[in-house]
Amino acid sequence: MTTPTWLKLTRTVRFGDTDAAGVMHFHQLLRWCHEAWEESLELYGVEAKTIFPGCRDQKHWPDIALPVVHCNASFQRAVHGGDQLMVQLAPQRIDQSSFEVRSQFLLKEQDVATGLIRQVAIHSETRRRCPLPDAISRWLEAAQIGQIREL
Amino acid sequence: MTTPTWLKLTRTVRFGDTDAAGVMHFHQLLRWCHEAWEESLELYGVEAKTIFPGCRDQKHWPDIALPVVHCNASFQRAVHGGDQLMVQLAPQRIDQSSFEVRSQFLLKEQDVATGLIRQVAIHSETRRRCPLPDAISRWLEAAQIGQIREL
Amino acid sequence: MTTPTWLKLTRTVRFGDTDAAGVMHFHQLLRWCHEAWEESLELYGVEAKTIFPGCRDQKHWPDIALPVVHCNASFQRAVHGGDQLMVQLAPQRIDQSSFEVRSQFLLKEQDVATGLIRQVAIHSETRRRCPLPDAISRWLEAAQIGQIREL
Amino acid sequence: MTTPTWLKLTRTVRFGDTDAAGVMHFHQLLRWCHEAWEESLELYGVEAKTIFPGCRDQKHWPDIALPVVHCNASFQRAVHGGDQLMVQLAPQRIDQSSFEVRSQFLLKEQDVATGLIRQVAIHSETRRRCPLPDAISRWLEAAQIGQIREL
Repeated sequence: MTTPTWLKLTRTVRFGDTDAAGVMHFHQLLRWCHEAWEESLELYGVEAKTIFPGCRDQKHWPDIALPVVHCNASFQRAVHGGDQLMVQLAPQRIDQSSFEVRSQFLLKEQDVATGLIRQVAIHSETRRRCPLPDAISRWLEAAQIGQIREL
Repeated sequence: MTTPTWLKLTRTVRFGDTDAAGVMHFHQLLRWCHEAWEESLELYGVEAKTIFPGCRDQKHWPDIALPVVHCNASFQRAVHGGDQLMVQLAPQRIDQSSFEVRSQFLLKEQDVATGLIRQVAIHSETRRRCPLPDAISRWLEAAQIGQIREL
Repeated sequence: MTTPTWLKLTRTVRFGDTDAAGVMHFHQLLRWCHEAWEESLELYGVEAKTIFPGCRDQKHWPDIALPVVHCNASFQRAVHGGDQLMVQLAPQRIDQSSFEVRSQFLLKEQDVATGLIRQVAIHSETRRRCPLPDAISRWLEAAQIGQIREL
Repeated sequence: MTTPTWLKLTRTVRFGDTDAAGVMHFHQLLRWCHEAWEESLELYGVEAKTIFPGCRDQKHWPDIALPVVHCNASFQRAVHGGDQLMVQLAPQRIDQSSFEVRSQFLLKEQDVATGLIRQVAIHSETRRRCPLPDAISRWLEAAQIGQIREL
């Protein structure tokens, strides 16, 4: 049994992602991690406007914000412009109000880099911790089942 | 007859593309223009390493560089996170050594923005103007034919 | 008589601003233009929270938004990592509700690039055109006087 | 005794650094970390062209490259557009061929975020590990002394 398709994405490295050393400039990877998470939600069926402020046709912005509280990335191999990477997401609930998503980047089945983003749910107004939005919980559970089945 | 598929792309606006005004931050559009051009070349069959320095398995970097000498963008409607835009490319040769690519961004067939990038071919070493790389010439001609047929 | 100091800025090009061609990646210049405008307002005495949403201690966001409706840039010479550029701003009112800022980038008194951003004032709620915020008007007038004196 | 001035920088948060949630978009912090490191080298007296490829008047690019192998960031408080942050750098040699720089971001003496970048020295050609460039070693030692004196 394979990982659900909404946890297995692709990303082509663009010229503007490189620096004068001729390889990907390191912090682009963390942008890709966030974008991969957004794409996964979308593919799973969660509309952007359910989660993110600033979307079209939002009568008001979501009650719950999800600030990033930690991120990290490790780089195993140089990533080049034009590389067509596979991105495998491993989301994990930490507690009622927080979760993290590990993104593994592979080129032809070789690991090239890993990134991780940890986010906490807070009420937009009070800035106090609160339970994760339902849509995120559903996506986390479905991911958990998909990952277990894979074992 | 329709525009060739390699001139008609899509782009989903990501959360990190927005700013605190709740809409796309303006200069992201020019990044998208360049990335759309790269994607179009790829779809047409031009490998990144033929054109761009910094690619994998390049014995040496391409002899011809293509610096951007001019770019512009006009914004007709607000672009929001989560928007799924259509991007229509209209490339045009200017002379033997330069060309430009206009990218029109549409949301549900309404124009939202247009961007343009103009590039000049120079020898990487001498920094002198030279004819466009063959692959770019072929892509420009094929685009021209595709656009004419559309009339 | 010299240009006011708040229209004459500096910008050091950083490694992450370059791409694999070994020079500044073109769209960074438009980011610098916007940042130079922000810095000029700040130096002139306009606090960020008067103009921009998303600032600290804003009871509510400014009533007037200033979306960019057009931008362009032209590149005369290659810009390299480590370059210490001078940035000269030439702001200009277009009409009651719009203005543009031209930023000229120089290296050792030689022009290397020019960028321009045009912005329109709209009510944040109704999205209808309205007069420019007072602080912007004052800054534009002061810039006009500074530029005239220079002649 | 105080920290050397070349380890104590400032950074004003710009509008384009924010996202639609109204605060700094998380990965900008890692850009700032790298830029702060570059600025510190410059202030200490290390010219960009000694270390970074893509600089002006480089006859050839530096023999030693310094790819980032790990980075992380933790966010304690929301960072807003217009915030004038203090950035305190704590560089540390790890072994003969690698080092890391911790950047602490403060607003009015309160911690808002911390970032870390770890880099490894490799020969540009062979891509094999090698001792750090002399200029980096000197900067690391001087920083060490500055930090010890502070205790």
